[in-house]
Amino acid sequence: MNALAPPFDPKEFRRALGMFATGVTIVTTTAADGTPIGITANSFNSVSLEPPMVLWSLANNARSLPAFSDSTHWNVHILSNEQEALSNRFARAGEDKFNGLALDMQPSGAPLLTGCSARFQCKSAFKYEGGDHTIFVGEVVQYDSSALPPLLYVTGGYALASRKAAPVSTEPQAQLEGAVYSENLLGYLFGRAHFQFLHGIRGTLQQRQLSDTDFFVLSLLSVCQPLQVPEIAAHIAYTGVDLGTGALQSLVQRGLLVQEAGGLRLSPTGSDAILHVLAAAKSVEADLVDRMGEMESAALRNLLKQAILATDPGLPKLWQATAPAQPAA
Amino acid sequence: MNALAPPFDPKEFRRALGMFATGVTIVTTTAADGTPIGITANSFNSVSLEPPMVLWSLANNARSLPAFSDSTHWNVHILSNEQEALSNRFARAGEDKFNGLALDMQPSGAPLLTGCSARFQCKSAFKYEGGDHTIFVGEVVQYDSSALPPLLYVTGGYALASRKAAPVSTEPQAQLEGAVYSENLLGYLFGRAHFQFLHGIRGTLQQRQLSDTDFFVLSLLSVCQPLQVPEIAAHIAYTGVDLGTGALQSLVQRGLLVQEAGGLRLSPTGSDAILHVLAAAKSVEADLVDRMGEMESAALRNLLKQAILATDPGLPKLWQATAPAQPAA
Repeated sequence: MNALAPPFDPKEFRRALGMFATGVTIVTTTAADGTPIGITANSFNSVSLEPPMVLWSLANNARSLPAFSDSTHWNVHILSNEQEALSNRFARAGEDKFNGLALDMQPSGAPLLTGCSARFQCKSAFKYEGGDHTIFVGEVVQYDSSALPPLLYVTGGYALASRKAAPVSTEPQAQLEGAVYSENLLGYLFGRAHFQFLHGIRGTLQQRQLSDTDFFVLSLLSVCQPLQVPEIAAHIAYTGVDLGTGALQSLVQRGLLVQEAGGLRLSPTGSDAILHVLAAAKSVEADLVDRMGEMESAALRNLLKQAILATDPGLPKLWQATAPAQPAA
Repeated sequence: MNALAPPFDPKEFRRALGMFATGVTIVTTTAADGTPIGITANSFNSVSLEPPMVLWSLANNARSLPAFSDSTHWNVHILSNEQEALSNRFARAGEDKFNGLALDMQPSGAPLLTGCSARFQCKSAFKYEGGDHTIFVGEVVQYDSSALPPLLYVTGGYALASRKAAPVSTEPQAQLEGAVYSENLLGYLFGRAHFQFLHGIRGTLQQRQLSDTDFFVLSLLSVCQPLQVPEIAAHIAYTGVDLGTGALQSLVQRGLLVQEAGGLRLSPTGSDAILHVLAAAKSVEADLVDRMGEMESAALRNLLKQAILATDPGLPKLWQATAPAQPAA
């Protein structure tokens, strides 16, 4: 336990408060002179159902405090997981935060942003003292929501949420003393997820008489071709397949690949085959996303990418850079 | 936009509010007669830094309202992801909620629970009107926090948080018209995570002259043995490996498996081999969890289990039931 007086370390205190996860909102209003005002806040909360009321709080030294204090209406926007940049924009002072933003009609007179998970148009009800902040309580006069997964803020960074799952089977009960193989091992879960997904397209692979290795080679070339044999081998090596030249020669002999000056390339037959397999994969993927839900799928992609970065043995980059890399959160 | 009057659908309104993710807290106090009081709340928020203040709100018709209204002190506990059952216990009325719970020393006189992500001991500062709720603002007099990942509540259910990741490479740029193979496909991410993990133990597998298939068979038997050949084949089939009898016979010939009346079983050599491989896997796993962090690892396990359930082709259960299955969240 940290006693708060004295000494009191505000950074440490903020870190402890950061264990409480929140969504992220932007609260907007219009100043007396008509200027649109907006600020990022995660101090939002629902308060009352009858009448419907919500609250949020703002630092007393915030430049926007007078505008919110004087205003009769303000709007709360619960940001979706695609709106991290918007959150950052409205968290900073200065500049015209609304520049270039699409705004919906504003019956309340306060700006209404788009692309959010939910929005609440409020009539100011109470303003309360809260130490160095003012607590604003508003009555909700209109609201709407979307299916967009919400953006989160927790332990000082942006995050995604995912529902808690039921266990895959149950607790491990290894029969071999010292064996630690369990369903809670990421290594086991990766393999099972991978093979079950592949299982969903195995029929299509078999129809086309494609082995798993053939599939890796053809899908690699569908992203990036032509490639020389050693380049293909370098991309595939981490799967443990020692490609040699046999597998590739066989694909050439079967008319799926053609040899060019620049390297190997998909033939029309090869393109047709991989497009069919990828269509099957897309269908398995769509079914999986449908079952898991958008929020969970986004979080799973996000976490698999972290795991892949954390275990990257130094693979050659597969995809071309088309946009500057985002900073790591 | 849903206008709120009339008609106003409270369920729909609550669903929209549910898009705002929150942590989960239990707030405790002691009634005038000494009875410990506690209630689950997700209406918590930080308010002020100087003085350090937090708030939460409670329904005016809550049975615990008089106790909190009369009390000079209350404690807020930010629950960790292991405390879902505790959250449910304190969300229900009746019964002795504190029965059997470990409590820390209570300098404030209010019960202090253990195993939380963070705890704030507060002196009641303000009570404000908030429609059908009362808003409690307290000054934090002591606090502490742990490294336990917090429990979340979002869109009407418990959830885990995970930090947003940087992209694995960058946006896809397929060269083949219509090809949809991209780094955002779960199918691709599963495979890459699986093979990269396996890459980390490949050295150990090669030392022991074990193929991927040998590894699957030996680890299966480390969990559950003896098994008949068709049972092993049924467990392995989803990986696409057609086991036949060749691979198993080879493992017997090499002295890794022994044939018994009940089926195949690990020999002492086989046990030794798989224990070494599993130790290597455990080390890769520990390194991965260390790099990703506990919060992300827990969320990733959770989501992989959802994906595995969603794509399960009807595999035989690998692990014995030792505890009743938890209800799906």
